[in-house]
Amino acid sequence: MARYLYDLCGRDERLRFSPYCWRVRMALAHKGLSVETVPWRFTDKQALAFADYDKVPVLCDGEQVVTDSYDILCYLDTTYPEAPLLGEGLAKQRVLFFKHFVERSVTPSLFRIVALDLFQAVHPDDRDYFRTTREARFGCTLEEFHDPERGRAELQKVLAPVREQLRSAPFIDGDSPAGADYLLFGSAMWVHCVSREPWTTPGDPVDAWFERMLDLHDGLARNAFTIRDLD
Amino acid sequence: MARYLYDLCGRDERLRFSPYCWRVRMALAHKGLSVETVPWRFTDKQALAFADYDKVPVLCDGEQVVTDSYDILCYLDTTYPEAPLLGEGLAKQRVLFFKHFVERSVTPSLFRIVALDLFQAVHPDDRDYFRTTREARFGCTLEEFHDPERGRAELQKVLAPVREQLRSAPFIDGDSPAGADYLLFGSAMWVHCVSREPWTTPGDPVDAWFERMLDLHDGLARNAFTIRDLD
Repeated sequence: MARYLYDLCGRDERLRFSPYCWRVRMALAHKGLSVETVPWRFTDKQALAFADYDKVPVLCDGEQVVTDSYDILCYLDTTYPEAPLLGEGLAKQRVLFFKHFVERSVTPSLFRIVALDLFQAVHPDDRDYFRTTREARFGCTLEEFHDPERGRAELQKVLAPVREQLRSAPFIDGDSPAGADYLLFGSAMWVHCVSREPWTTPGDPVDAWFERMLDLHDGLARNAFTIRDLD
Repeated sequence: MARYLYDLCGRDERLRFSPYCWRVRMALAHKGLSVETVPWRFTDKQALAFADYDKVPVLCDGEQVVTDSYDILCYLDTTYPEAPLLGEGLAKQRVLFFKHFVERSVTPSLFRIVALDLFQAVHPDDRDYFRTTREARFGCTLEEFHDPERGRAELQKVLAPVREQLRSAPFIDGDSPAGADYLLFGSAMWVHCVSREPWTTPGDPVDAWFERMLDLHDGLARNAFTIRDLD
């Protein structure tokens, strides 16, 4: 059965840095499902018309079309119940909180660290779109928003509960990784792929976790093309 | 079977404001278990010697003595498995993250809002102990740490994922309250019992959640004695 994932690409087609697409790529690997990625750019709205959606990730799983990264994780758990990502009942309700934590608390601080690197990473044809949408969201220019030092200081505080969690287990979800790990890891890959700015400190449990995550699933993320491969 | 909970009291014996004791009182009510509280003060270390512990809560459940609020919640789930508080597997791992979130991110901001109110709420004989231990932890005086406006600004950001979670369900743990709700609610009661400082804003989903929590279990928390009853 053919399985395709529409995946954001940057100024080089091999540069894939969407945090939402990384969640899904790791989740598919977690389920042992192979996928072919289809490079997509922000302004390529027409390419997604078939899905009645205007953003990635979009997963085509045989006849099934699923949009939105979190809905894709739900879909994967329902369709391929082995090795749960989100789980059910209280587990699912609590990973939804973790999703909000990543999106509302972690991601904005990471954005401060890499705003201008991200701008450089997107395709030149996409840059106007990227700048306009992000500046409207922040209420200031990308140049004003970009502040790696402030981002790192915020992140240091925001990640305190993650750091504490990782003192008692190798993964956020315990002895092995699951949905919560992939939700945070997606945002970490976003930074890792487009920037050389450090966002963790050696010796921090979060740093050791990130290294472990890079190695999962035959080094899927470790082998990702990054800005370092472009120079 | 006799069941006792050693519970921190303040300058009035009816004033009970420990966030860790409130977690346990709500958890016991959640399980439908009655309990008799034993008022305890910070410097009353001798009274807890039987438990080989120097803080509250301490639960005496018949012959069983259990210390530490989180361990008590675990004990309750094991001994009284109906109506899980923490749950098992992924659910339990994720509520552990939520515990760290409450203790590392929420509680410090709440402390800024009520530091001096807390100081006034503790028993006069306990105030030296309270001041010395807290000032050592913060690295500054209580007066320097006390900053309600800054606390509220921090809290506004820190609670963003909770607010988002409460847009889709009445409780953090979904349609009905469970462990995550009680973990956060304990800290909220701490503020509510000792201070008139607002920590939520009317119209905020967190405010509506707090009101719902106050009403649970026949208004156990709604009927609590607070600083307002002292004037």
